[in-house]
Amino acid sequence: MADYLNMDTLRFQLFGVHDLSRLFAYERYAEYDKSAIEIFLDAVKDFSDQDLFPYFREMDESPAKFEAGTVKVHPKIGEAMRKAGELGIIGGPYDIEDGGMQLPNIASHAAYYIMEAANNHVPGYLGLTAGAAHLIMAFGSPHLKATYVPKMLSGHWGGTMCLTEPQAGSSLSDITTAAAPTDDGTYLIKGQKIFISGGDHEYNENFVHLVLARIDGAPAGTKGISLFVVPKYLPAPDGQLQPNDVVTAGDFQKMGQKGYCTTHLAFGEGQGTIGWLVGQPNQGLKYMFQMMNEARIAVGRGAVSIAAAAYHASLQYAQERPQGRRLKNDGTKDVSAEQTLIINHPDVRRMLLSQKAIYEGALSLVLQTALYHDLYEVSQGPEKEKYHLLLELLTPMAKTYPSEKGRQAVDNGLQVLGGYGFCSDFVLQQYYRDIRIMAIYEGTTGIQSQDLLGRKVTMEKGKALHWLTEEVMETISAAQTFDGLQPYARELGEKLLVVKDVLNHLLPYAAKGQYERFLSDATLFMEMMSTVTVAWQWLKMAVQAKKALVIGDASFTSEFYESKILAMRFFFKYELPEVDSRAASLKNAEALTLLDQKELIC
Amino acid sequence: MADYLNMDTLRFQLFGVHDLSRLFAYERYAEYDKSAIEIFLDAVKDFSDQDLFPYFREMDESPAKFEAGTVKVHPKIGEAMRKAGELGIIGGPYDIEDGGMQLPNIASHAAYYIMEAANNHVPGYLGLTAGAAHLIMAFGSPHLKATYVPKMLSGHWGGTMCLTEPQAGSSLSDITTAAAPTDDGTYLIKGQKIFISGGDHEYNENFVHLVLARIDGAPAGTKGISLFVVPKYLPAPDGQLQPNDVVTAGDFQKMGQKGYCTTHLAFGEGQGTIGWLVGQPNQGLKYMFQMMNEARIAVGRGAVSIAAAAYHASLQYAQERPQGRRLKNDGTKDVSAEQTLIINHPDVRRMLLSQKAIYEGALSLVLQTALYHDLYEVSQGPEKEKYHLLLELLTPMAKTYPSEKGRQAVDNGLQVLGGYGFCSDFVLQQYYRDIRIMAIYEGTTGIQSQDLLGRKVTMEKGKALHWLTEEVMETISAAQTFDGLQPYARELGEKLLVVKDVLNHLLPYAAKGQYERFLSDATLFMEMMSTVTVAWQWLKMAVQAKKALVIGDASFTSEFYESKILAMRFFFKYELPEVDSRAASLKNAEALTLLDQKELIC
Repeated sequence: MADYLNMDTLRFQLFGVHDLSRLFAYERYAEYDKSAIEIFLDAVKDFSDQDLFPYFREMDESPAKFEAGTVKVHPKIGEAMRKAGELGIIGGPYDIEDGGMQLPNIASHAAYYIMEAANNHVPGYLGLTAGAAHLIMAFGSPHLKATYVPKMLSGHWGGTMCLTEPQAGSSLSDITTAAAPTDDGTYLIKGQKIFISGGDHEYNENFVHLVLARIDGAPAGTKGISLFVVPKYLPAPDGQLQPNDVVTAGDFQKMGQKGYCTTHLAFGEGQGTIGWLVGQPNQGLKYMFQMMNEARIAVGRGAVSIAAAAYHASLQYAQERPQGRRLKNDGTKDVSAEQTLIINHPDVRRMLLSQKAIYEGALSLVLQTALYHDLYEVSQGPEKEKYHLLLELLTPMAKTYPSEKGRQAVDNGLQVLGGYGFCSDFVLQQYYRDIRIMAIYEGTTGIQSQDLLGRKVTMEKGKALHWLTEEVMETISAAQTFDGLQPYARELGEKLLVVKDVLNHLLPYAAKGQYERFLSDATLFMEMMSTVTVAWQWLKMAVQAKKALVIGDASFTSEFYESKILAMRFFFKYELPEVDSRAASLKNAEALTLLDQKELIC
Repeated sequence: MADYLNMDTLRFQLFGVHDLSRLFAYERYAEYDKSAIEIFLDAVKDFSDQDLFPYFREMDESPAKFEAGTVKVHPKIGEAMRKAGELGIIGGPYDIEDGGMQLPNIASHAAYYIMEAANNHVPGYLGLTAGAAHLIMAFGSPHLKATYVPKMLSGHWGGTMCLTEPQAGSSLSDITTAAAPTDDGTYLIKGQKIFISGGDHEYNENFVHLVLARIDGAPAGTKGISLFVVPKYLPAPDGQLQPNDVVTAGDFQKMGQKGYCTTHLAFGEGQGTIGWLVGQPNQGLKYMFQMMNEARIAVGRGAVSIAAAAYHASLQYAQERPQGRRLKNDGTKDVSAEQTLIINHPDVRRMLLSQKAIYEGALSLVLQTALYHDLYEVSQGPEKEKYHLLLELLTPMAKTYPSEKGRQAVDNGLQVLGGYGFCSDFVLQQYYRDIRIMAIYEGTTGIQSQDLLGRKVTMEKGKALHWLTEEVMETISAAQTFDGLQPYARELGEKLLVVKDVLNHLLPYAAKGQYERFLSDATLFMEMMSTVTVAWQWLKMAVQAKKALVIGDASFTSEFYESKILAMRFFFKYELPEVDSRAASLKNAEALTLLDQKELIC
């Protein structure tokens, strides 16, 4: 079997670059050591090799499909969920007393990264079930926890998040699903939800929907949204399951991720659908954002996984396919010579290195974000606040950078194969289709970008950005102590100043009350700032690699460490310069997208 | 029916920006006037509305497929070919004495642009048939011309170009298909060809393959390649067709363009395949390049067409879909207000304008290239040489810019629809899949880029670049006479200097014999130079629009003209700055893709 990811690179990032082991000093993670995490990840890799990767192409070729009132998915999905439950993956990061493993979030993300690189159609079922269970753990009553969480963490019951409605799309303030209180404290839920991933199939005994709805008389907008647990089947005390009038009305056939069903659910159109309020009324969106924030990082991670797998598939092809000859010094080719492997053509190598620089950089960004999550959970006082702000600031970038640039990486991977890349016999075209959804899931790139510039950068008077700058400066200082890294340290410092310069240009618009103008090019700001942030991750990786080379750390070969430094240089040569072109656009005074006239688009 | 392109924009470019009418002064085109061209294009639009667009989704849903020895395609394809033959489209640009219409190439490209925007799966059948017929007209014997050309131009027989072989891919010097002379002056052809577009189906009576092969004893490499006409069926003098041992061995199922079959052909594996030499022995690649160069422009045009159709589909959605609200000055939203149409969100408008700026700019580049082709055909002496050089220089850009940036445009179109963009019920995902092949067909982006930097820019001591610079400077001068265009004129002039500066940096590598280093980042050079070239086209369009506004030309509304100037400004704000980031990468001294060690990619 061709490998779909590089476990060494993952270990290097986890234990080297991000020093996961530092977490073991905290009580929450005191039961773990490096070897325990490695054993867990190896088990996840075995599971992925055996139960996920072999079914990846099949799931694309035989899509999940709504037929005769039910959704048909690949039979492996139910089995994989229960195996993942047994391995502790679903409950991974949650408290032991809730049935979880109290695994560091960074290790849990590493586990999903492995699974998603093997088969990005399956882990969504696990991740949504975990996220829904976590909402119940965090905000639900003891009764809800006892009734639902164990069955979810074991993979027997699926979980979903039900936000989107046909008339509202991304505009959550416009949802209309209604919740009418009943005498026994439950609610009757009525409404339609669309784009519900993993919303129904025959291989889970039950589905536990976490549904946003309005209690009768609630205020308009997002302030009137409450959160409900709405099971597909009502569990009776004797364990019997009774239908709860949750009807699958249809599905959405998609260009990619075809094994991961996307459903249209109707609540309360028959005898009535019962739901249980989670936490307090009208606080639903706040609660849901716990799951949303987790899901946003997860989407970014999914995009990294696909980019990683695509890289390895195109790398393998380039190492096996002979074609053409290298240029001689005079620009001619020796046609009597044997053909060379295409990996030896500079342009092919450029495309491969571009994939590598993007996916490994994006992976490091995702793991960095997850680590901040962990540090936030275990810290106290000002430390806690710092890590919370860093987590908040990095989340939209961890979601968006991999989704956007990962697409470009996969695109390069497809191109490496030439005509074969476009053919269904080769897997690249599947990765190309699969990854496209990532920039849409859980808030589009436009929405993430408005979150980054409009909320995260400015929150608490820019304190999050202050902390991020501190973190970057620390890496720059470390890099300056190594021969050969100074130029890159200097360059990163300069680009950081470019970001500040752009902010100095944009923030006055907000101050002047021109808020729409302030945010109109937020997507470009996202591109610029996330590129700088990933450059920081690359410099951090290069520092770690240099350190290892200097002290003779034999965890990996010296070629391995050198390869990381080369990829950093590649990123700085080919990716980082885009910061300046984005800055030029952002500082351009023309406001071309705020004009009202329709005829402008003719 | 939603429209899939803007005929006004096409007319503006043809008759305004590129002043097609100037061609009527030449004898070759003396029979035409503006109205004749318009009537022809309107007929093509009607044909596209009736016979192409309605079948576009069907062809994707029921792909062309190899079954039981034959290729099943959509039944409409045969009918559409014969209708296109009747309309004169297939023979369009060729000599009247050869059965063509002596239509200007620019008008022929406009016709294909319309058809491809309606349905990009069908016109390839026409274009290849036309190109193959043109090869026979240009280099074939009178016997070959009489036997094949009329049936091809009428759409009854299909034509193909057979270059690629399994072991050779893009490396044509490695093709091994053999041609053994027989006593009667014909050849026995033996070999396999793959990726043959439009290579076989039941709705054409015959297929005329233009095959590259080596005559026994021919020199190695591309100098030993000859061109042959190899029909699927041998036409007897009485019109009967006899099998010629051309066997369809299989097909390639693809991610997109599924209605356009891609076949694997085997020649001479049974009783023997007869082929006729075209022109002189060992000159085959030179002849084939006539068709290749035409096909390269056609591929770029196909990409523009898809980007145009995707733009119109996403524009329509954005004008109909309400979602969310505009930001108020303080950054809040009024949730009690009606939802706004998504076209009113700046980020959606940015994505739409980005599509428009790319596709209209790319269309103008394609038409400019076609116009140079026309001017080359009708000019004499130094003029002829100038237009030949301009045609040669622009061809790789006309192929590549639309293929690469058109993909980005379609990607934005898909994103405009959010989750629906990823769903099979909406057409955007089809455009997204279809356009992906364009960067691969007829020489990948890497190959086009090496052609641009390694051959076209340097040929005849840089004379082509000299002429292009003259052309750009002429537009800059014209722009400087209009209030409001001066800043853009200045900026384009500056970017032209950036290109020269980069060349001054790169050319010494070639002079020093470091040819591989010289070309290692050719793809970035392509991005940079084609962006400047399209910026020139935009400035040209803006000049034309300004002129029309000043003199009160009522061919189009003033909103229409203003919209072109706005799109130019958009291009200059959002696209043109990338020139500098590419230049920074190109001038970076690190040669990271020339290193030999395999472990660099680990």
